[in-house]
Amino acid sequence: MKILRVDKLSDTEWLNLFQVTYRLPDRDPRSWLLASRQEAPRCVTGRFETPDAVIIAAFHRHRAKLVVTREYRVPLGGYEVGFPAGLVDPGETVVDAARRELREETGLDVTRFLNASPPLYSSAGMTDESITLVTVECEGEPSNKALDASEVIEVLFVSPAEAACLCADSSLKFDAKAWLVLSRFAATGKV
Amino acid sequence: MKILRVDKLSDTEWLNLFQVTYRLPDRDPRSWLLASRQEAPRCVTGRFETPDAVIIAAFHRHRAKLVVTREYRVPLGGYEVGFPAGLVDPGETVVDAARRELREETGLDVTRFLNASPPLYSSAGMTDESITLVTVECEGEPSNKALDASEVIEVLFVSPAEAACLCADSSLKFDAKAWLVLSRFAATGKV
Repeated sequence: MKILRVDKLSDTEWLNLFQVTYRLPDRDPRSWLLASRQEAPRCVTGRFETPDAVIIAAFHRHRAKLVVTREYRVPLGGYEVGFPAGLVDPGETVVDAARRELREETGLDVTRFLNASPPLYSSAGMTDESITLVTVECEGEPSNKALDASEVIEVLFVSPAEAACLCADSSLKFDAKAWLVLSRFAATGKV
Repeated sequence: MKILRVDKLSDTEWLNLFQVTYRLPDRDPRSWLLASRQEAPRCVTGRFETPDAVIIAAFHRHRAKLVVTREYRVPLGGYEVGFPAGLVDPGETVVDAARRELREETGLDVTRFLNASPPLYSSAGMTDESITLVTVECEGEPSNKALDASEVIEVLFVSPAEAACLCADSSLKFDAKAWLVLSRFAATGKV
């Protein structure tokens, strides 16, 4: 693909809309719209290594349950059931970001790192956003009090049976990644 | 949450950026940016029932393998490994959309509907986009020829062992949902 032109259709600090005009080999030029948190879209900069964010599948060993959050999300006009998650700070590793975000959002401490996925793309038709799923063990008592007053987050702990009930509750709004991890946990007892 | 004001920061046919100014109980007004494929964001219209899109986990019974696509994605500046997926047409059910998109993108035919997830949110911090995961059995031979010339899609069939190799290949760019379903298929042999 040859990028012929990039138009930035908005000018905000956090998220912008871009129109990319491109040409595939032996095709006419076309354009594509995408939203990006980056200053320039990743398809322009070529920087795909560092994800925008981490999402944390945290298994609390003493409770033998997975950590689930219920967080107010403006785009959903209500609460979303998901996992602790957050943007990776500049220069931060995904493991450090996971440790920090779990602490900030839930008050829990990572005790063991289990694994990290490659950067996964949230919805590549509309955004270059990528997110790494970090799986950890954790300990501690939840604070149920976010450090940043803009975040309204409740911490839940779920067993496989409770995960099955949550995943089947069609009144809930679920993060896609969390729903898939919880469905697997419900079926297999494993993260 | 009370929505005080919605500003549409762009004006395109497919995807737009909105700034929502809102107030939570006992908090000062704040604003949030989101991208949406809707004419007005779902938090304004309250219409959360119908997802934007479907993604299809298709098990080919005769081959005993899962259908995986390798599709050119402009926002990624290259190919994404994922599942057949596409927008739900107005008035269409998610099952009909899955049947149509599987046929259009791969040439394969749905022979049995297994289940459908609730609408899952791709990345609720930045968009109200939702997608339903539809799990089906399918048959037929792949066309490897997209009906719409703008879509460059290659069809692969993967066993659990092949799914494990794919998921561990850090040179690939993966759709988040497909990676999670394939990881589970690799570990359990089940979809």
